[in-house]
Amino acid sequence: MIKAGIVGGTGYTGVELLRLLAVHPEVEVCAITSRGEAGRPVSDLFPNLRGHFDLSFSDPAAGALDDCDVVFFATPHGVAQSTVPGLLAKGIKVIDLSADFRIRDVALWEQWYNQPHACPELVGEAVYGLPEVNRDQIRRARLIACPGCYPTSVQLGFLPLLEAGLVDVGDLIANSASGTSGAGRQASVGTLLAEASDSFKAYGAAGHRHLPEIRQGLEDIAGTSVGLTFIPHLLPMIRGIHSTLYATLSDKTVDLQQLYEARFRDEPFVDVMPAGSHPETRTVRGSNTCRISVFRPQGGDKVVVLVVEDNLVKGASGQAIQNMNILFGLPENAGLMAPALLP
Amino acid sequence: MIKAGIVGGTGYTGVELLRLLAVHPEVEVCAITSRGEAGRPVSDLFPNLRGHFDLSFSDPAAGALDDCDVVFFATPHGVAQSTVPGLLAKGIKVIDLSADFRIRDVALWEQWYNQPHACPELVGEAVYGLPEVNRDQIRRARLIACPGCYPTSVQLGFLPLLEAGLVDVGDLIANSASGTSGAGRQASVGTLLAEASDSFKAYGAAGHRHLPEIRQGLEDIAGTSVGLTFIPHLLPMIRGIHSTLYATLSDKTVDLQQLYEARFRDEPFVDVMPAGSHPETRTVRGSNTCRISVFRPQGGDKVVVLVVEDNLVKGASGQAIQNMNILFGLPENAGLMAPALLP
Amino acid sequence: MIKAGIVGGTGYTGVELLRLLAVHPEVEVCAITSRGEAGRPVSDLFPNLRGHFDLSFSDPAAGALDDCDVVFFATPHGVAQSTVPGLLAKGIKVIDLSADFRIRDVALWEQWYNQPHACPELVGEAVYGLPEVNRDQIRRARLIACPGCYPTSVQLGFLPLLEAGLVDVGDLIANSASGTSGAGRQASVGTLLAEASDSFKAYGAAGHRHLPEIRQGLEDIAGTSVGLTFIPHLLPMIRGIHSTLYATLSDKTVDLQQLYEARFRDEPFVDVMPAGSHPETRTVRGSNTCRISVFRPQGGDKVVVLVVEDNLVKGASGQAIQNMNILFGLPENAGLMAPALLP
Amino acid sequence: MIKAGIVGGTGYTGVELLRLLAVHPEVEVCAITSRGEAGRPVSDLFPNLRGHFDLSFSDPAAGALDDCDVVFFATPHGVAQSTVPGLLAKGIKVIDLSADFRIRDVALWEQWYNQPHACPELVGEAVYGLPEVNRDQIRRARLIACPGCYPTSVQLGFLPLLEAGLVDVGDLIANSASGTSGAGRQASVGTLLAEASDSFKAYGAAGHRHLPEIRQGLEDIAGTSVGLTFIPHLLPMIRGIHSTLYATLSDKTVDLQQLYEARFRDEPFVDVMPAGSHPETRTVRGSNTCRISVFRPQGGDKVVVLVVEDNLVKGASGQAIQNMNILFGLPENAGLMAPALLP
Repeated sequence: MIKAGIVGGTGYTGVELLRLLAVHPEVEVCAITSRGEAGRPVSDLFPNLRGHFDLSFSDPAAGALDDCDVVFFATPHGVAQSTVPGLLAKGIKVIDLSADFRIRDVALWEQWYNQPHACPELVGEAVYGLPEVNRDQIRRARLIACPGCYPTSVQLGFLPLLEAGLVDVGDLIANSASGTSGAGRQASVGTLLAEASDSFKAYGAAGHRHLPEIRQGLEDIAGTSVGLTFIPHLLPMIRGIHSTLYATLSDKTVDLQQLYEARFRDEPFVDVMPAGSHPETRTVRGSNTCRISVFRPQGGDKVVVLVVEDNLVKGASGQAIQNMNILFGLPENAGLMAPALLP
Repeated sequence: MIKAGIVGGTGYTGVELLRLLAVHPEVEVCAITSRGEAGRPVSDLFPNLRGHFDLSFSDPAAGALDDCDVVFFATPHGVAQSTVPGLLAKGIKVIDLSADFRIRDVALWEQWYNQPHACPELVGEAVYGLPEVNRDQIRRARLIACPGCYPTSVQLGFLPLLEAGLVDVGDLIANSASGTSGAGRQASVGTLLAEASDSFKAYGAAGHRHLPEIRQGLEDIAGTSVGLTFIPHLLPMIRGIHSTLYATLSDKTVDLQQLYEARFRDEPFVDVMPAGSHPETRTVRGSNTCRISVFRPQGGDKVVVLVVEDNLVKGASGQAIQNMNILFGLPENAGLMAPALLP
Repeated sequence: MIKAGIVGGTGYTGVELLRLLAVHPEVEVCAITSRGEAGRPVSDLFPNLRGHFDLSFSDPAAGALDDCDVVFFATPHGVAQSTVPGLLAKGIKVIDLSADFRIRDVALWEQWYNQPHACPELVGEAVYGLPEVNRDQIRRARLIACPGCYPTSVQLGFLPLLEAGLVDVGDLIANSASGTSGAGRQASVGTLLAEASDSFKAYGAAGHRHLPEIRQGLEDIAGTSVGLTFIPHLLPMIRGIHSTLYATLSDKTVDLQQLYEARFRDEPFVDVMPAGSHPETRTVRGSNTCRISVFRPQGGDKVVVLVVEDNLVKGASGQAIQNMNILFGLPENAGLMAPALLP
Repeated sequence: MIKAGIVGGTGYTGVELLRLLAVHPEVEVCAITSRGEAGRPVSDLFPNLRGHFDLSFSDPAAGALDDCDVVFFATPHGVAQSTVPGLLAKGIKVIDLSADFRIRDVALWEQWYNQPHACPELVGEAVYGLPEVNRDQIRRARLIACPGCYPTSVQLGFLPLLEAGLVDVGDLIANSASGTSGAGRQASVGTLLAEASDSFKAYGAAGHRHLPEIRQGLEDIAGTSVGLTFIPHLLPMIRGIHSTLYATLSDKTVDLQQLYEARFRDEPFVDVMPAGSHPETRTVRGSNTCRISVFRPQGGDKVVVLVVEDNLVKGASGQAIQNMNILFGLPENAGLMAPALLP
């Protein structure tokens, strides 16, 4: 059994790691830390875990993580940076769900996250944990930076088009929408049910922190610089991300459906839907699957890609476990085989 | 035009007062105070009011209320107590939407609200603003204590039965449920969309602050002490209260439908539904109407009363305006005539 | 008082006309027809109207509309076509909320709506009821074709850019999303709460019936042919449309905020939001206002316009009443002055 | 591997059986029937199952069920009656999720379900599949009648009180509320998102079909006749049942918390919550667990029991699988071990 630790287990990605690891056949969660909730049983905060874990939050300073084989960071950005070096020095693998090691250009990171980076020397070593692109490097990594929720959906959706060089890379549009769990389990007026329910809005239209991450990923895939407009929106629901992607085809002869099916045929967690169908976020609720449809409306020169994922699973904790599975040589879908909850 | 002021206008009952007063033909809102938002336009915080009010929050200390004919308190409990005496001394009428003056027994208030009462000398003078019971006293009041949201629904529902002496007053049950706007516009984890949506729970089962208020009201109506079990629940929606009331009939010969219709025939804001129909909260969304149905399941000795209201309107701001209309001799439904928003 | 009739009053646009006309100072609803519900009180079907209308559905064949000054059609497409000529012959004005008279090219209409048009001779006379574009023609019309819900939001959002000739008209993108009330009050599995709630999806990506209507409207404004990609989505909520519009600027020197404010300064129902703000659909819930924000992300050559409206008000019944007000020389905002319901 | 068949797989209990059986280690689904969808892949109707089942709906007449060890009926009432005898004759076990064999008094069944019973001779043999009450009989059954969703929650909640003889059995109240998935996957206006969302109502107050089933179960437990008032309500959400139960204590000295904990200590799917806590339906979303809290408000003579379950799992398909596990000597929690999906 792999011994796993979780830092910052009081947020949604933390409880989601626990929910998924509860049925993972090869992993035992041996520690979960929280400064604020130290001593409190996790099932007290998250009653859905009653009977599944006999575990209490421990103080991060108490060395509880030292016996772990792997530690997940489910923390706000800025936290992992200072703790990761010590863990790596002890031979512990680190899978970071936060933004700390996602962007290779440290100055760019510091500009968007508005703080100095505490561990720039590890940024270059960190592997960007998008298995569909970096599976081989993930296998050999010590430190994995899990992609953000929006970036996962946008990169997977554009992937076949960019690899095949079929679209104008200077004019990509990602119109994305997320359920409010993406904003985390922090008390805030804006995501109260009475504010965010029965309503819809864009936010961050002038610039969102996921923009540089997505651009870096798309440029890695395309092998050239790209122009991207990214507008996120807030959905009146709990889980799920939907990205509607627009690009202009430079080659209109290609069979897009065939292209997507071929590219993702061997991917365990990317499902290309039948031609003409529209993926719904609920069809991936609670599962690690990303579903994709591709359209060419009215037979014109625009390609429209529809992508859905569960922001807390493929967009965060599920993808982190997928990375762990790869890293430790387990079946890639270990612990991730339950179908989505529908209805 | 009546000049109205609002204290504490940044919460839901504050914006609801503004929404309703925007179309009131006889009232001009001349001041709205907020310590935290002083100087900020109200339409900046509440964009639905853009174009309707050219008004900014003012500091409560600045004397902005001195020119008012009437001042509404849309504040948390404990605030009105200290400000009301000064306003009354200036001849300004006060309509308090908070709990400060609802309970005549000051010691009981202090026990449930866990603080000393700052103005016990006015508690006796305050009129409990339930027009269906106290219309005449409201007409002559200086200080009106508006009923709580749950208490309005429970008292109106039991009213005909208690007045007619038809049920066992020692065993009344009120099973109530409210949308999350009842919890106010405060940042809190428990009412985040991601926590409170797509879920349902009871709360305060051991004892809720509205219990002594409801009991006092029912005892006033019944003219005797009553036994009440009150269990509130949190609904995954924004607005609306539904109370399901249970009592045991001491007289099984009475025509309950006829009793309710007769009692409320002249009430502008209580609608007795046709026999056999079930009121839905959405049929009163945004309106000051309370709808009631009465059942005797299987012809047994239990009477079941179903009551719906909009917690922010008949349960708070609308009832406050109804009280104001009575107080100033206006038509009781002035400004309150728009139908509910359905769907 | 203007005497108004409604054909097909059992759907959402029908009950919404009634809700709004209930507080209109100059209109009396004298007939509402429904073949299926003839004889049934409207307040039986829509309890929010109890106490507001003493009106029953009447059979459309019974001549109930003959005394009307104006008749609204709140029917599915294909119904108004056969009845309108008879009403016009009697001197009755017609405001059609359906798609029957929106598209000037009859062959194009027949292709998208998949049926022969029963009244092609009136298509040319019908005035497209978008007051912000056609106010003068509306004033003189006999037959007004109210715009669709999506088309209203997309046309208003692109209007200033196209009139000023500032964008590449060959590449316009409208990414829109609607609450499920847009699908009407028909029993269907796809819009059950258990199917459509807590989920999000695109639909009609290959081609939606509003596409030709929007394109016609944009071409009228631009004075040239346009290229448009339009992708609608289904929101897990009741009311509200949000359109996110993308275009490429041909002139990057223009002050977009100033352009929009100037264009809509005198429009009673278009509100240009302060720079940097994001409109929420709930800020127009139940109101006839359309709110717009304009962005140029990262200072690049893309302009992004955010538009919200209530699909049942400015997107349907409210705009129909706005048209009626213009047609009969009433204040344009008569009966349409209530602020949106928030929260 | 146990070979399982499903009759009527196009509804919510059908897809839920598939979702749960997809991860059951000892069961293979070999047939799923639907007259209307014969030939269509199940993953076409339920895309959450893509990649999990390579199975199409088959015609019920085609003998597809003959090789099964067990057949689940996920059909409306009235269907199982006519097919069950043939299956039993072939030695196939039957687990019926419908109401057909729940009520022992055939005349009573016929009265509430308003049709003649097609198979009264098997009613007496059928075992009522509430494992917490009938585990031994379930083990030896050929035909299991799974309890209804409301009845499961009400019986489990009252169970310890009735077994211990602690309450007045003549005056039991069950105030229950269910998400709309309980109404099934049928097109109907009343459960459209635009009708049932953001609203709450009681229904069936005059009498609901689950009333005789609950009363029979409570009487079996109590060993005497009981008086029950049962009022169901419709929640604006997808999954989850919450029952708030009221009874009058005849013995006020008992430690209720201890009573409940002792009674359910060995039950794998009943979780007694810590004293003072309120169970939320979301803590059982997608899981077979039922959580219960017990209160004695204000120390009076009323006991209030709060019960939550997922209506599609412990209230239907999960309980059916629990029954199957018992019937076939498998671990009772096989395939039912995943924690609830929260948030």
